[in-house]
Amino acid sequence: MAWNTNLRWRLPLTCFILQVVMIILFGVFVRYNPEADAHWIEEKRLRNISSDVENDFYYRYPSFQDVHVMIFVGFGFLMTFLQRYGFGSVGFNFLLAAFGIQWALLMQGWFHSFHDGYIFISVENLINADFCVGSVCVAFGAILGKVSPIQLLIMTLFQVTLFSVNEFILLNLLQVKDAGGSMTIHTFGAYFGLTVTWILYRPNLEQSKERQSSVYTSDLFAMIGTLYLWMYWPSFNSAVSNHGDAQHRAAINTYCSLAACVLTSVALSSALQRKGKLDMVHIQNATLAGGVAVGTAAEMMLMPYGSLIVGFICGIVSTVGFVYLTPFLESRLHIQDTCGIHNLHGIPGIIGGIVGAVTANEASIAVYGEEGLKKAFDFEGSKSSWNSRTQGQYQAAGIFVSLAMAFVGGAIVGTILKLPFWGQAADENCFEDEIYWEVPEAEKSNYHHEDTTLKPVAS
Amino acid sequence: MAWNTNLRWRLPLTCFILQVVMIILFGVFVRYNPEADAHWIEEKRLRNISSDVENDFYYRYPSFQDVHVMIFVGFGFLMTFLQRYGFGSVGFNFLLAAFGIQWALLMQGWFHSFHDGYIFISVENLINADFCVGSVCVAFGAILGKVSPIQLLIMTLFQVTLFSVNEFILLNLLQVKDAGGSMTIHTFGAYFGLTVTWILYRPNLEQSKERQSSVYTSDLFAMIGTLYLWMYWPSFNSAVSNHGDAQHRAAINTYCSLAACVLTSVALSSALQRKGKLDMVHIQNATLAGGVAVGTAAEMMLMPYGSLIVGFICGIVSTVGFVYLTPFLESRLHIQDTCGIHNLHGIPGIIGGIVGAVTANEASIAVYGEEGLKKAFDFEGSKSSWNSRTQGQYQAAGIFVSLAMAFVGGAIVGTILKLPFWGQAADENCFEDEIYWEVPEAEKSNYHHEDTTLKPVAS
Amino acid sequence: MAWNTNLRWRLPLTCFILQVVMIILFGVFVRYNPEADAHWIEEKRLRNISSDVENDFYYRYPSFQDVHVMIFVGFGFLMTFLQRYGFGSVGFNFLLAAFGIQWALLMQGWFHSFHDGYIFISVENLINADFCVGSVCVAFGAILGKVSPIQLLIMTLFQVTLFSVNEFILLNLLQVKDAGGSMTIHTFGAYFGLTVTWILYRPNLEQSKERQSSVYTSDLFAMIGTLYLWMYWPSFNSAVSNHGDAQHRAAINTYCSLAACVLTSVALSSALQRKGKLDMVHIQNATLAGGVAVGTAAEMMLMPYGSLIVGFICGIVSTVGFVYLTPFLESRLHIQDTCGIHNLHGIPGIIGGIVGAVTANEASIAVYGEEGLKKAFDFEGSKSSWNSRTQGQYQAAGIFVSLAMAFVGGAIVGTILKLPFWGQAADENCFEDEIYWEVPEAEKSNYHHEDTTLKPVAS
Repeated sequence: MAWNTNLRWRLPLTCFILQVVMIILFGVFVRYNPEADAHWIEEKRLRNISSDVENDFYYRYPSFQDVHVMIFVGFGFLMTFLQRYGFGSVGFNFLLAAFGIQWALLMQGWFHSFHDGYIFISVENLINADFCVGSVCVAFGAILGKVSPIQLLIMTLFQVTLFSVNEFILLNLLQVKDAGGSMTIHTFGAYFGLTVTWILYRPNLEQSKERQSSVYTSDLFAMIGTLYLWMYWPSFNSAVSNHGDAQHRAAINTYCSLAACVLTSVALSSALQRKGKLDMVHIQNATLAGGVAVGTAAEMMLMPYGSLIVGFICGIVSTVGFVYLTPFLESRLHIQDTCGIHNLHGIPGIIGGIVGAVTANEASIAVYGEEGLKKAFDFEGSKSSWNSRTQGQYQAAGIFVSLAMAFVGGAIVGTILKLPFWGQAADENCFEDEIYWEVPEAEKSNYHHEDTTLKPVAS
Repeated sequence: MAWNTNLRWRLPLTCFILQVVMIILFGVFVRYNPEADAHWIEEKRLRNISSDVENDFYYRYPSFQDVHVMIFVGFGFLMTFLQRYGFGSVGFNFLLAAFGIQWALLMQGWFHSFHDGYIFISVENLINADFCVGSVCVAFGAILGKVSPIQLLIMTLFQVTLFSVNEFILLNLLQVKDAGGSMTIHTFGAYFGLTVTWILYRPNLEQSKERQSSVYTSDLFAMIGTLYLWMYWPSFNSAVSNHGDAQHRAAINTYCSLAACVLTSVALSSALQRKGKLDMVHIQNATLAGGVAVGTAAEMMLMPYGSLIVGFICGIVSTVGFVYLTPFLESRLHIQDTCGIHNLHGIPGIIGGIVGAVTANEASIAVYGEEGLKKAFDFEGSKSSWNSRTQGQYQAAGIFVSLAMAFVGGAIVGTILKLPFWGQAADENCFEDEIYWEVPEAEKSNYHHEDTTLKPVAS
Repeated sequence: MAWNTNLRWRLPLTCFILQVVMIILFGVFVRYNPEADAHWIEEKRLRNISSDVENDFYYRYPSFQDVHVMIFVGFGFLMTFLQRYGFGSVGFNFLLAAFGIQWALLMQGWFHSFHDGYIFISVENLINADFCVGSVCVAFGAILGKVSPIQLLIMTLFQVTLFSVNEFILLNLLQVKDAGGSMTIHTFGAYFGLTVTWILYRPNLEQSKERQSSVYTSDLFAMIGTLYLWMYWPSFNSAVSNHGDAQHRAAINTYCSLAACVLTSVALSSALQRKGKLDMVHIQNATLAGGVAVGTAAEMMLMPYGSLIVGFICGIVSTVGFVYLTPFLESRLHIQDTCGIHNLHGIPGIIGGIVGAVTANEASIAVYGEEGLKKAFDFEGSKSSWNSRTQGQYQAAGIFVSLAMAFVGGAIVGTILKLPFWGQAADENCFEDEIYWEVPEAEKSNYHHEDTTLKPVAS
């Protein structure tokens, strides 16, 4: 079966169909939440709200914008570290996220904001849509440089769907807390992506080995991504927490965890290299693991020193993962993880789930106060019989559910993406912008021009 | 008549005179709004405000900072796509915006914040000043690389003045709504800039053709600008809307419109290229057209699907414009539009004005509620006799006024800028940083050194 | 005595020890402020607060995130202007700041947030920690490229300590106002750094002269730093001001000062160059001096025109400093100031202190109102006998105390850093990333490979 990488009709058609479907579904289902509706003036009176500042917009909008930057600039530029894949990193991330947030508004809306036949959206929905897409960006990191934009759009379609189902199971059925998404976003996203890349295994990928490294400038571009993720992570983990102390606490905990993580990442990066030099890959990635790992517990009474300990451990684990685990996964398990998401999102995500379970399990009236404990874990209504121990057990269950969803979902989606007509590149043309982008003349690289139009799948 | 590009005395003198005049005028006219004045503590009591959080600062400051980033990093870096004009793009944008915001504070202040002989400024004035300068940044895009910094300062002086007059006509005389500035900022800015570049037509510009394209790195820098514009556009369109639901809704609508716009931009970019490859120019620019085109209607009950439709259309129109219209304008109409602002701000701006007029025209009590409709369109006081239809008609009139102001103003200013003593470069030296900047030794380009000091105007 | 730049054991050990100590001290001392504690729900009732929006988080968090960006992206990228030191600029700044904020939370906490044996932290502490680290970033600018990361960590340890002592003397003993830190952050940071670099004088530094300049791309990366510092400076100067008018006013004043500063920086940059060309160094740095110089007075009734005048002067002084003073300091006083912090933070910092003293001295009931004056300068309790004149005098004293602390502290710390076993590079290897970083193969520079492992100190 013959196929090629010229996407002239396939990509436009995919985009058009997806976007038209979005418009139709939005037309049928999506309306404004009362806080964003012109009837707000009446709503305020009804709910006895005296000031516009009580509109949730003012509680969440600054965090929303920070999260938005993390998804588009943070993830987009973090992946520009490859020498010849800057356009694809930023551009495809832009494309998949722009589609993903629309589909996430619908999927999450049906599960969480659906009343009387309509989805009512507010700024909180926008944040959650960005979160959902964040898990796709994570998975993208595993397959970066090896898939076509059509494959990315298809993966986004399925992954957003599965994310929403998993999130529904965790948040509504298991009633776990996971404001910063250690389980729903990172664990799920990472193992989903790793499963996909395992299925898409390319045995001859060493043919494009020379393009799988960075150059000086690309490493600096990647640092833009790293720093925006690092700086805004306190917003990420606090964006959808309860108003007041929970948001406040989540920001503080994340700030602490990330600070500690930088020091141990630097320490390990130097210690694991014979000449003691620092490796940009670790600085770009492992320094962020602390943010992932307090995703679940950040809004809990983890305590600042608890956050430091989490960051401390994750900087070590993540850097060690980059040095030893990634090569092992590739050579032994045939898992080709371009960005090393297993070290940045996989293991730290699981650690985050465990930290959350333990912190919930240890939650006590002594620490939270009676009302505080109730409010923090919603021990009211259907959960009025719960205690910290129950919460801790359900939290732990959430990790396994997320992993199961990731493996099963990733296997199915990976198999779909393996179909030969999505315009994927040959092994020797991976990690190369010229396949899908007009690249400025002066800088054409030495990729294999003869192979781009018609070629059997190499795998 | 002989002239040269050595600005040693002209540029410093221009800057000094402008800045000294600003200081004098600020000294005579500009004072703090009560919300930013030390008397606020008394003002609060008078206005029966119980909490500092009711200070408008807290409603608008986060949006202000986002808008600020759009003007300086967004526009500045978007224009760095040229291979040898990065310093000029970021640096001159910085210069003109820094001057423009001061002059805008005065001009807009006289029209909108003038009481008892003083202009009283608050964070809302800062946002509006940034908006006003945004229209100059738009116009700068048309003449990028072909003018001297002195010309830019002069253009800014006049354009800010005309912008403020046009804004006054629209907002105060015609009483239109245009919170995100589809008409006042984008339509006016784009057609003003296009008229200026038409007057400054350079018949021999193909002499610097080789510098009119991008290189790999410059395209990545430009994506920083694109993404910041894209991500923060919800803040742009909601920054000066009414507190509460209007700000909230404007952010949601803009988010939706921009998301849809990305998919159709990508679709058309691939479809219009024989090999189906994506063109960075389209990704950098057309993806933003959706933000421009909901500038007027974003705060209205456009509905999320309405926003998606607007974004859908604008992604198509803008990309088609880049492929077919820009070359046509240059070859047939002698309009040399360096950044293609006609496709990003011109047409989408007009579409935005039309969308606003139609949305206002269709506004009904059924959708807005009685109070909501009144509040959304200020159907009180002098407008108490208005209905949606009246509003729609005035909105439409606003488009034509903006266009007229742009054409007439642009023609006058273009003629002034055509005078031969502003230090403009020769045709073969356009798009070249070395003319006005110290460029690091190692990277001197092949521009025409012999021509820079003394040379007759080429045009 | 022999030494080398292989940090394999020294850097990891330093990081580990510092981080473990931080964890222990946090465990013993650091707890959540009531506003970030789960007991907030009870606290609200006690303090009769009706809405979560009164939580200080919502007053300060947006500014905090802007300040955070300034520290990590602003300072980090501003220093990437060197052609071969981008990794070190961004990476070491990241490292020292991540450690510094932890140590600052403790040091400042003991002085300002210590009750009943615990430090209670909230978002305001995070901002102040970032501020404190800002002064270290300033000092880093003087020694950029000439020190090892171990030296930076040691300097951070001491400088944060001294900063906190100095801040305590100024804010608590002298009771001065310095919300934007002209004295505590900039004056102290700059003269501390200059003293350190004076002690670390390298007589043969011209051996790495060729690496002490920029390249085209590095100048663009540096502009990212410049612009983020410039844009977010209004947040910096207003972040910890009183709620309401003071924050509002501080933002407006800083906005104005910075705008004026750009024009005079450009003017002088062009005027001081024979060919009238602009120098990126001035655009990257001098344009920011206006923000430094309103650091103390921004929250006072400086008036918008007063801010413009301050910016006007600082743009001139700073640019002149870069052209004439920096070379003079290096050749005559043996002060090697890599980034020219004396021009950006030193002189403008002192100017800022003076502007603050004069503005406080001139403060009157006519301008502030009776209550406003009391509130602005805390003329209550222990300060109830003070008047504007007293305040002005104490403000002036604050400048001298900051300078004294900087000189004495810098001399001690410089002497410690001069010890030969911290892994510093030889003179011919300064400003070179390869010493401490894995640099992508393709771009190895011509640094002296033979010298890196074992070499006597050159100085």
